[in-house]
Amino acid sequence: MTKTSPGNFFEDFRVGQIIAHATPRTVTTGDVALYNALFGPRFAVQSSDVFAQAIGYPRAPVDDLLVFHIVFGKTVPDISLNAVANLGYANCRFLKPVFPGDTLTAVSEVIGLKENSSRKTGIVFVRSSGFKQDGTLVLEYVRWVMVRKRDETAAAPGDHVPRLPTELDAKLLGEACPAIAAYDNALAGSAHRFGDYNVGEKIDHVDGMTVEEAEHQLATRLYQNTARIHFNQFIEGQGRFKRRLIYGGHVISLARALSFNGLANAFHVAAINGGRHVAPLFAGDTVFAWSEVIDKAELPGREDVGALRVRTIATKDCPCGAFPLKAGENDDPAVILDLDYWVVLPR
Amino acid sequence: MTKTSPGNFFEDFRVGQIIAHATPRTVTTGDVALYNALFGPRFAVQSSDVFAQAIGYPRAPVDDLLVFHIVFGKTVPDISLNAVANLGYANCRFLKPVFPGDTLTAVSEVIGLKENSSRKTGIVFVRSSGFKQDGTLVLEYVRWVMVRKRDETAAAPGDHVPRLPTELDAKLLGEACPAIAAYDNALAGSAHRFGDYNVGEKIDHVDGMTVEEAEHQLATRLYQNTARIHFNQFIEGQGRFKRRLIYGGHVISLARALSFNGLANAFHVAAINGGRHVAPLFAGDTVFAWSEVIDKAELPGREDVGALRVRTIATKDCPCGAFPLKAGENDDPAVILDLDYWVVLPR
Amino acid sequence: MTKTSPGNFFEDFRVGQIIAHATPRTVTTGDVALYNALFGPRFAVQSSDVFAQAIGYPRAPVDDLLVFHIVFGKTVPDISLNAVANLGYANCRFLKPVFPGDTLTAVSEVIGLKENSSRKTGIVFVRSSGFKQDGTLVLEYVRWVMVRKRDETAAAPGDHVPRLPTELDAKLLGEACPAIAAYDNALAGSAHRFGDYNVGEKIDHVDGMTVEEAEHQLATRLYQNTARIHFNQFIEGQGRFKRRLIYGGHVISLARALSFNGLANAFHVAAINGGRHVAPLFAGDTVFAWSEVIDKAELPGREDVGALRVRTIATKDCPCGAFPLKAGENDDPAVILDLDYWVVLPR
Repeated sequence: MTKTSPGNFFEDFRVGQIIAHATPRTVTTGDVALYNALFGPRFAVQSSDVFAQAIGYPRAPVDDLLVFHIVFGKTVPDISLNAVANLGYANCRFLKPVFPGDTLTAVSEVIGLKENSSRKTGIVFVRSSGFKQDGTLVLEYVRWVMVRKRDETAAAPGDHVPRLPTELDAKLLGEACPAIAAYDNALAGSAHRFGDYNVGEKIDHVDGMTVEEAEHQLATRLYQNTARIHFNQFIEGQGRFKRRLIYGGHVISLARALSFNGLANAFHVAAINGGRHVAPLFAGDTVFAWSEVIDKAELPGREDVGALRVRTIATKDCPCGAFPLKAGENDDPAVILDLDYWVVLPR
Repeated sequence: MTKTSPGNFFEDFRVGQIIAHATPRTVTTGDVALYNALFGPRFAVQSSDVFAQAIGYPRAPVDDLLVFHIVFGKTVPDISLNAVANLGYANCRFLKPVFPGDTLTAVSEVIGLKENSSRKTGIVFVRSSGFKQDGTLVLEYVRWVMVRKRDETAAAPGDHVPRLPTELDAKLLGEACPAIAAYDNALAGSAHRFGDYNVGEKIDHVDGMTVEEAEHQLATRLYQNTARIHFNQFIEGQGRFKRRLIYGGHVISLARALSFNGLANAFHVAAINGGRHVAPLFAGDTVFAWSEVIDKAELPGREDVGALRVRTIATKDCPCGAFPLKAGENDDPAVILDLDYWVVLPR
Repeated sequence: MTKTSPGNFFEDFRVGQIIAHATPRTVTTGDVALYNALFGPRFAVQSSDVFAQAIGYPRAPVDDLLVFHIVFGKTVPDISLNAVANLGYANCRFLKPVFPGDTLTAVSEVIGLKENSSRKTGIVFVRSSGFKQDGTLVLEYVRWVMVRKRDETAAAPGDHVPRLPTELDAKLLGEACPAIAAYDNALAGSAHRFGDYNVGEKIDHVDGMTVEEAEHQLATRLYQNTARIHFNQFIEGQGRFKRRLIYGGHVISLARALSFNGLANAFHVAAINGGRHVAPLFAGDTVFAWSEVIDKAELPGREDVGALRVRTIATKDCPCGAFPLKAGENDDPAVILDLDYWVVLPR
């Protein structure tokens, strides 16, 4: 009997199934340094222990997206090793800050299954949760992914499409953000606070970042994400794209880092309402991004911070001064990411 | 007089010579993060302080191979700066776990010398030892390397080929492994323990990892390994291979990380019986690996763990489902590494 | 109103203007590990807590140039986002050691302005200072940079060229270096101390290091340096060089790391008298370096250490055995860096 794990195929899943994922991971300042080197974020809260302490954190928290990627990575061997495509995210909440020294584990629940008409694949919906060493839930999100069947003739393991919210209620945000005091605009890099942003406002983040093979491989291995398509040129060179595909989360992190130029005080990602990777990214491409403020909300009982609902579009090889969109609106093939999320910033 | 070190040539060595190597090195969680990003290991013991503590370590130990590479790196300026080829390893034991914060130093003893018939080169056998700040021996190994002579007419500095064991006795293993308790299969990623493996069992590790120039350079510099052939395209572009050669230890770490898929509970490399780099690896190549369990042993007085003697073969651009071999058995030119080592796993 | 920062143009500066730069940064052992992986320095003081403690530091200090790059990076969004060229450095002093855990901030004062005759650009002279969390000044330096005007017809904002010293007095050096005791030559990698170097002595550092795109991007993002020319192949591919330009500080760090081979005991950069990037470096090029000892000085009241004034020349694709120079002396187009600095080493 082989000891090698083949991963799960569509017919292996059941609605209600709970999967405890392998490889707990202690996050360190080493991970933070690599994340900084890979994406170049400049948000002061995550960059400086002193700044973080001044506003109410015990020390600089780990970037929310680094936490997301580490939790996501754990789910890959069980959920998406045999995936054809990662279709979307919804209902993602960042519930507690994570600090260097914390150890993360992940659990997923299968909340939906839908066989495709071809009977070769099906869509698996999972709610994945990330926990600290003391059992605190730090992150949860839903994703859905198209997974191959091992055997086309196998019966579908279920037929249930969960209802997913398209937006998280602002009342649910801010739990991971302590009471904020003494926020220094100059050190943070911008005078623009919650009250300065208007719904409908569009911001071109201007800068572009070219991605190298070594960079996305380093990042994706750092998250212990084992999806084969990111690492194996020998196999992918014979495949559909002829090359390695970059982990979609890499684009999210690049877009977030680029968004500093225009959203410098949006120091915390509180939730992701939804997101789609609308086209693949490959090494050598240059990522640009722009954002639109699509909603804003005061948080219950919070005089210190408010939330902006931001839609960030990332493109490849296309500066974003003209605010390109895709899908139903303005079909620009340069668009690679359409992300809808809530950020928290000081009032 | 120049201050530049030319390194040692074959005629500079003497049997019995002791060389204290330069540049002590404090290992940190930063090094661990980089190692993770470079190779993507998923062994729970090294990944999680909480998991490591639950089974008996004070915290997550540093990956055994990272310790090996750091100690090896220190020996390069004195032993192999003028090497033509790194010929083999033997008798390598990992004697104590190393933790972030420990400082490593290295010492080598010349244990053999044999001039080649061409009189242009000779083989140098050294036993290298790595120590912690308190003098604890954490690692020792023998390697032999073909080194150029400065002057072909120089007399050979000795003629002694040491007898080297081809296998470490299992009685000598396990010293670096604390008494293991409460080992969680689900978190570790596999239900297969010591008793589940059989001698003769072959495991294809399935996945492949493509190596980029930036990756192997980052790794090899991290170890302060100064071997010129890894870093200097200007010179190597005019040489035998027309390109930079990847440090052989890079292949060992990739094969070890890939072996998680099939050997997930083999959390500790206790010894390396022998190893040969049978062909060079270059950037752009994709590394695959497979393993055979060639022996298994209970450890004296240990009910908690046992040892598997594993032979791992790594290839380039060749998936390993057919278990390719090289040299005397089945001469597959794709094979690049043939490594014989003992791993420890829970019973 | 857009929230995106356009950076400052020449006409935005005023002599005497003080700019507090954004994004304070806690330096960690993760940053140190990345710096080691990117450049491969081997100076024992920065590599080992134990060695550093033995000679008088509380622990291993952060490499002086890593501190320089982090402080420099902070100044980019305000000073040089619209720069055409970084022209030079002067009067740079390293005043206190920085340790992992320290948080750095930066402030610049505009000390000179000179419009170019084309009226399209002007030269901005700034004195930039780096501070620790407790207000300690750890680094200061002057640089001058050619910055575009937003509007060619705008009036020049001033006309003042500051007098800059071409050399720092040795009396001002050594403040960042504790009293040194018990320095171990063998561990440090060289027997050559202060007294062994002579003015006029030239040292070829022999080794070459090829730079990859991923490497310089990782480094420059690690410093939160946002200069666009380093990261955006889409735009730079249409520009003057057709490719991304490597941050000049990358060359300085490579040259310093290469200089270990010949200057192994020069563990501390105390000052930079001046420096010029005389030609650009691109990925794929191999950097070599050589040095000349151009002065030496005892430090007032210090029996433990002395200072060498060193001129280090870095080249691309040109081994330095013939000691190539550029500009007024021997116009070798391979030369990319001409750096004049003081290093401290044990007597």
